[in-house]
Amino acid sequence: MLTHPQTKYQRFIGVSLPDRQWPNNAITQAPVWMSTDLRDGNQALIDPMSIETKLRFFKKLVDIGFKQIEVGFPSASDIDFQFVRLLIEGNHIPDDVTIEVLTQARYELIERTVESLRGAKNAILHMYNPLAPDFREIVYNTDKAGVKNIALTGTRWVKELTANAPEVNWTYQYSPEVFSSTEIDFVKEVVVEVVDIWQPTTDNKIIINLPATVEMNTPNTYADQIEWMHRNLNQRECIVLSVHPHNDRGTAVAAAELALMAGADRIEGCLFGNGERTGNVDIVTLAMNMYSQGVSPQLDFSDIDQVRKLVEECNQLPVHPRHPYAGELVYTAFSGSHQDAIKKGMAVQSKDGRWRVPYLPIDPADVGRGFEAVVRVNSQSGKGGVAFLLEQEANLQLPRKLQIEFSRTVQRENDSTGKEMSAARMKEVFEQEYFDATIPFAYSSSTITSVGKAGQQVNIQFALNNEVYSIEGTGNGPVEAAANALSTFLNKKVEVADYHEHAIGEGAGVKAVCYIEVKLQGTESTFGCASDSNIITAAIKALLSGVNRLM
Amino acid sequence: MLTHPQTKYQRFIGVSLPDRQWPNNAITQAPVWMSTDLRDGNQALIDPMSIETKLRFFKKLVDIGFKQIEVGFPSASDIDFQFVRLLIEGNHIPDDVTIEVLTQARYELIERTVESLRGAKNAILHMYNPLAPDFREIVYNTDKAGVKNIALTGTRWVKELTANAPEVNWTYQYSPEVFSSTEIDFVKEVVVEVVDIWQPTTDNKIIINLPATVEMNTPNTYADQIEWMHRNLNQRECIVLSVHPHNDRGTAVAAAELALMAGADRIEGCLFGNGERTGNVDIVTLAMNMYSQGVSPQLDFSDIDQVRKLVEECNQLPVHPRHPYAGELVYTAFSGSHQDAIKKGMAVQSKDGRWRVPYLPIDPADVGRGFEAVVRVNSQSGKGGVAFLLEQEANLQLPRKLQIEFSRTVQRENDSTGKEMSAARMKEVFEQEYFDATIPFAYSSSTITSVGKAGQQVNIQFALNNEVYSIEGTGNGPVEAAANALSTFLNKKVEVADYHEHAIGEGAGVKAVCYIEVKLQGTESTFGCASDSNIITAAIKALLSGVNRLM
Repeated sequence: MLTHPQTKYQRFIGVSLPDRQWPNNAITQAPVWMSTDLRDGNQALIDPMSIETKLRFFKKLVDIGFKQIEVGFPSASDIDFQFVRLLIEGNHIPDDVTIEVLTQARYELIERTVESLRGAKNAILHMYNPLAPDFREIVYNTDKAGVKNIALTGTRWVKELTANAPEVNWTYQYSPEVFSSTEIDFVKEVVVEVVDIWQPTTDNKIIINLPATVEMNTPNTYADQIEWMHRNLNQRECIVLSVHPHNDRGTAVAAAELALMAGADRIEGCLFGNGERTGNVDIVTLAMNMYSQGVSPQLDFSDIDQVRKLVEECNQLPVHPRHPYAGELVYTAFSGSHQDAIKKGMAVQSKDGRWRVPYLPIDPADVGRGFEAVVRVNSQSGKGGVAFLLEQEANLQLPRKLQIEFSRTVQRENDSTGKEMSAARMKEVFEQEYFDATIPFAYSSSTITSVGKAGQQVNIQFALNNEVYSIEGTGNGPVEAAANALSTFLNKKVEVADYHEHAIGEGAGVKAVCYIEVKLQGTESTFGCASDSNIITAAIKALLSGVNRLM
Repeated sequence: MLTHPQTKYQRFIGVSLPDRQWPNNAITQAPVWMSTDLRDGNQALIDPMSIETKLRFFKKLVDIGFKQIEVGFPSASDIDFQFVRLLIEGNHIPDDVTIEVLTQARYELIERTVESLRGAKNAILHMYNPLAPDFREIVYNTDKAGVKNIALTGTRWVKELTANAPEVNWTYQYSPEVFSSTEIDFVKEVVVEVVDIWQPTTDNKIIINLPATVEMNTPNTYADQIEWMHRNLNQRECIVLSVHPHNDRGTAVAAAELALMAGADRIEGCLFGNGERTGNVDIVTLAMNMYSQGVSPQLDFSDIDQVRKLVEECNQLPVHPRHPYAGELVYTAFSGSHQDAIKKGMAVQSKDGRWRVPYLPIDPADVGRGFEAVVRVNSQSGKGGVAFLLEQEANLQLPRKLQIEFSRTVQRENDSTGKEMSAARMKEVFEQEYFDATIPFAYSSSTITSVGKAGQQVNIQFALNNEVYSIEGTGNGPVEAAANALSTFLNKKVEVADYHEHAIGEGAGVKAVCYIEVKLQGTESTFGCASDSNIITAAIKALLSGVNRLM
């Protein structure tokens, strides 16, 4: 890396637009979405898709709700040609979906492209040619007039050749390539003449697509360029203004959003940002960003993991664990304070339709994610996460003091393993620690009888060192009576400092879980826990569990 | 996913700033970078780093050039406490590097935090508390006065407790948590009073860090918030204004860049965008974005793959193949037209210091990437990529017509395998196809003699069907003479349509490679190719290769 990169690289300036309006605007409706997964996405894969894979992907795009899908470059690839024919001849294209194909501005290629689309109901023919200085000077060794002539001649050929296939409802799309680094007044000059040749109407608009083939600078520079075009093009009402951002600087999503605010009507991109090099703009993130601001994206990602799985299989590329909205970890909080806040926020949601959970921009359930995605527990976590997981996994609603006590057990295990603890493992650890605390006192059975006005007598049978004992006690309720029975047996005061009990499950299978904070004379308090179909049995077992843990 | 998300989600509006100036600004110098890989990054890992791993990561951050590194949350984690002590007691912190640690605003936690830093030369004590409405109302059940009191009391404690450790050169950092979703005038009110208590100077500034703990809307809204704070804070000259963007909406890089334009001095983030949920802002992308605009980032990513490898090992998370600047595929072109343009652009670079290669925002060599990363060949590729790879891999400089001819061979193989072809495999295929075309005519030896004024006579020995032949011919040069000898032998005109020869290697090992386009009476032309240490032998062998391929 050069210490003085200014000798090699220069700051890019797009257009001067001091009276820009886009920063005052907001995105209030979904744009026209165009998926180029099967074209720009496919051409950037290590191993391009087979026809079967393309068809599978195409069907998923239709399911998600795309109405425009670029399906290939049929004049450049036989596979793409065959795929377009398969779509048309196999009747795979719903009436409200328009397929699109790319071509360069050469007569025989346009001819072949039109051929590939014969019999389609609707089609977008997408022609591009590079206008940018580096392409004129380095790649084509020509001048502005040269590249402009290619654009105009190509457009005339498209007009002539599509007229030969009148069964198709044609839309023409023109892309001045590397728009992002081309002199903007020159782009305008070429586009105005292309539009003049094509003669679009408000009913049959032309698509003018302005690619950030390479991201050139901060996304506001692209927005300025788009707003300038939006304000300066003739016949704007006959034009669908489209953007096609790439992600070289990691700001394609921002560029697309600011471009929408600047006047763009349509966005070309790929699912999860596949595409050349750093990828095309990610349509999933764009759509979900709108969604999180209360704007319906008109695309359905309610089962985002299923979409992700299909795309990963077709592209043979992973979606990153931190990919917005779709990554494995993006709804996950490991840290204790985050978990606490999320737990409290979740509890509020039930009362109020408005989503306001700290740290979670959207409800994971909206994209089909469950609680497992939200809270995960490792050595960075605190009682909030532990309590949340136990409640979600096993419906155990630990009292606050027990949350603190048990989270120390979890912390100890996590510190020693250095690993995350799963909800299932946490349930196991909890049950071992509390439910299985049956030594020395192993509960056998118990009976209860009312005595006096409000008192109760409890008789408890338990095993101790392989012998069976039976003890009795009385009190205001069964728990106090049991504690008194134990106090007498141990000759030590057994105190119940706190008591919680709740049901788990419903109907015939319902059980009670009881949490009792116990104190023995001269000890710190601890919890004992147990479950049983009988609430009194659960309480007595919990009391024994606490006494066992203290001994 | 809800069809009408407006019932559940609401558009976020940060601050109204119609006279914003940031869209007119550009980034002209590097900010203060703060790596929070070992704190915010670490707390978001499935399995947090061990102390050894943290130390390894810390050393790499120092090597890259970070001067501020957040190393943990010592009051919340014993491992973090031990790690801070290890850094200080093991003398691992260079004099020009300042470590930073996070704490909540509670007395005993601040006390423990100060304890962890005793003996450090420089330290940033970073205190945060949430001010945002959701936190006040849902998490803490308090009001503005309540959270403000926490901030002010905490700051007084920091002042008091750090005074007890005068051996440390203390800097205080305050973060009003979830700045991005808090009423901005309330943030200002709290920050102004925090600054008043701390009493910073222009020599000993306070760091005011404004986290987008959760991204709330398009990145321009964050920039407006930062510019508002930049313009409205008192004692701005005594404040380092810092930003801490997260990537929930996939626009953290944009948010950080626009924030710099809006007046921020400092950025907190992680390498490759690790961190809670979707991650902190990616400092690698930010730095390289500046670099590509001619601004030195003051961070060294000249061996980006080595950095990536270390970070992947420490975080146990991958860097995505399309991650800007660092992903496996981000300098790669598979498509034929892109490869052509890159090949031509690369050729121009040698003559001109300024980088202007189509499709490549920076020279891959600046981050230690070779040609293998740039051009890869599959069924989407054309002659440009084939020619580029053969030249890079084997120094074979195919003439244009041979590029077209041979790329058909490559295309056939790629179509049938559906896979990418490596440079090594391509060299192998080329050698098989041309150098190994020794049937039916297998060259044995040749001699050459001058005849007449400028003519030459060639004598060629070759094997044909296990018999050895010797033939003779004359011509203006050895190639013509050899063609004539073959014409006589075959009783068919052998024509040389084109001829190219160039050296491979240097010194004693130098060889010539010859490419000859041959036509036999009544056939299409094709190429023959051969290499030899003798330029005449190479030519005669190439001629035989061409004849063999035609027969």
